Amino acid sequence: MNTSGKHPDLIVQQQHPFNAEPTLTQLLQAPITPNDLFFARNHAPVPAVDVDAYRLSVTGLVEHPLELSLDDVRRLPKTSVTATLQCAGNRRKAVFAYKHVVGEVPWGDQAISNAVWGGVRLSAVLERAGVLEGAQHVACLGLDELGQGDKRFNFGGSIPLKKAQYEEVILAYEMNGAPLLPLHGFPLRLVAPGYIGARSVKWLAQVCVQQTPSSNHYQARAYKLFAPHVDAKTVDWDKGLMLGEMSVNSSICVPEQGETLAPGVVEIKGYAITGGDRTVERVEVSLDGGLRWVEARLSRVEPFAWCFWTVRLDLEPGTHRVVARAWDSAANTQPEDLAKVWNFKGYMNNAWPRVTFDVGRA
Amino acid sequence: MNTSGKHPDLIVQQQHPFNAEPTLTQLLQAPITPNDLFFARNHAPVPAVDVDAYRLSVTGLVEHPLELSLDDVRRLPKTSVTATLQCAGNRRKAVFAYKHVVGEVPWGDQAISNAVWGGVRLSAVLERAGVLEGAQHVACLGLDELGQGDKRFNFGGSIPLKKAQYEEVILAYEMNGAPLLPLHGFPLRLVAPGYIGARSVKWLAQVCVQQTPSSNHYQARAYKLFAPHVDAKTVDWDKGLMLGEMSVNSSICVPEQGETLAPGVVEIKGYAITGGDRTVERVEVSLDGGLRWVEARLSRVEPFAWCFWTVRLDLEPGTHRVVARAWDSAANTQPEDLAKVWNFKGYMNNAWPRVTFDVGRA
Repeated sequence: MNTSGKHPDLIVQQQHPFNAEPTLTQLLQAPITPNDLFFARNHAPVPAVDVDAYRLSVTGLVEHPLELSLDDVRRLPKTSVTATLQCAGNRRKAVFAYKHVVGEVPWGDQAISNAVWGGVRLSAVLERAGVLEGAQHVACLGLDELGQGDKRFNFGGSIPLKKAQYEEVILAYEMNGAPLLPLHGFPLRLVAPGYIGARSVKWLAQVCVQQTPSSNHYQARAYKLFAPHVDAKTVDWDKGLMLGEMSVNSSICVPEQGETLAPGVVEIKGYAITGGDRTVERVEVSLDGGLRWVEARLSRVEPFAWCFWTVRLDLEPGTHRVVARAWDSAANTQPEDLAKVWNFKGYMNNAWPRVTFDVGRA
Repeated sequence: MNTSGKHPDLIVQQQHPFNAEPTLTQLLQAPITPNDLFFARNHAPVPAVDVDAYRLSVTGLVEHPLELSLDDVRRLPKTSVTATLQCAGNRRKAVFAYKHVVGEVPWGDQAISNAVWGGVRLSAVLERAGVLEGAQHVACLGLDELGQGDKRFNFGGSIPLKKAQYEEVILAYEMNGAPLLPLHGFPLRLVAPGYIGARSVKWLAQVCVQQTPSSNHYQARAYKLFAPHVDAKTVDWDKGLMLGEMSVNSSICVPEQGETLAPGVVEIKGYAITGGDRTVERVEVSLDGGLRWVEARLSRVEPFAWCFWTVRLDLEPGTHRVVARAWDSAANTQPEDLAKVWNFKGYMNNAWPRVTFDVGRA
């Protein structure tokens, strides 16, 4: 596995394919995650790409199908977007601590990271190709291969055409000013801010404009939210909520579970995020299970990116249990109880984060 | 008050200004609410409008300010949109049953209705006016007047320019095929689907393209969501979450609270809605407080409109307590506990609806 450029202290959830997240401390170091700390979510080995031979094909419901080299792409007007990517399985560890299911990556709260992406607008490419009447979705296909023998297929997914036309949706060839690392989609990837990470297809080979969502396994069957009573035995994969935009979510990163803090003023910190083009409007913490809340101070708030939040409290010595919740610009907030949003794939856990910690005696 | 065209059985919450909602039974009669049953939310007396003298002015950051008569508007290409309007105070009665506050209209679950609106795209009007660089919001002003003496002002509000450019945002002169009733904004109103009702300004006098949200009282100070610890004494009106897109919500309309049903199969019904251009993806009911859920059958699901949902259950005789929750396309769901989303203005109550009913013995 090509894991070059990644930090040795990442929490490696899986070596093949490589799935890793930073520690809570690393995650909260800076609002823009350094490339070596950015979480990595892979379904297959990293494809080795020959840049000279590389072509992006733009096909489907378009007037002029395109075959673009990386240089062709780079010749289009360059833009940059600050966007947070979050795996649909972020915070799964908590879900499976409640009721375990085998076979999914047990992500902590760190399957999320934020970067400044450099590249070209997908809309600019689509404009050159000329989108035809009837187009509703833009399907992407990566160069990463899954399955065996004649069941081999490439990773893929789609976003609605309306989303593809947002100026913030880009074909990225840079991450924080550097060329994409192999692990993050070199030479070119989609970045679809506000959507679950799986839609930001890496090692982009094909953009297909079409009438329906992608029929790829990872759009049509995987990455679906099922009701709590559904399990692997009873599931009908054709049903379920096809995930796209992210829900409102937050995490408590400091202090960590079980930590003992020095007496005095305690700092509680974390991140909050929401989906689509909405913004996080408020984050609150409670030390009595949600009866009384204290409002957190937020870092810069903008669509498509997380914000960091901080609360400073003067606490008595002893054991404290803190919960948090975020509100977004549509007045949606997080569900209280993990047990009631449990689902067997462990997706979209946005239940209130809960951390128990101790404050020592002076 | 001009209440002509309205059904005599409406629940009148306030006579001056006229605020009324249909009964639960009336609400659920049809997915398109008849005009006489459509809920009415007013902040001031209905203005008497002389259609011949009526002009809509389009002003602000535009190349060509416009003064349009109703005939001018009608000459633009006609479009129609099915859109549900919901007051930000819908389901307030339940909020204030938990902890009462004086002075707000105590809406049941029926400050919501759905209609087919006929008119012209706001975007078509803006295109004619030519939106200038720097424009970010579209502020609307109604002909309805509030306040006294030199403190008189007109009702107003704004939506982001990006929203105004949706083809579903229209200047409506028809409601379900008939000219607007005076009570619903005759001769012309904004319909901003997916946003709280207050943004769909009635008796539209002015559309102003500008850099910032409207400074009108009803945008800048009212219709804000404050944290649970804030009250009328401590509130800073310049803070709070400025409401726009609606959160995910649902209501149980059948059976009603305290009803006794005949033995046998019981039908539980209601509506669900979400905001922006998202869709309701799933509605579930639970009879054990949220441990086990049963999925409801949904009527046609589309953005900008509510859906009706139905569950049929074979229940034992005795007392049952049912709760419901909806999920939207971004995997947001409703908060469980009303107490924890209480706010002193009683806005955006989307806590799980709860109804207790009895099933009789055969």
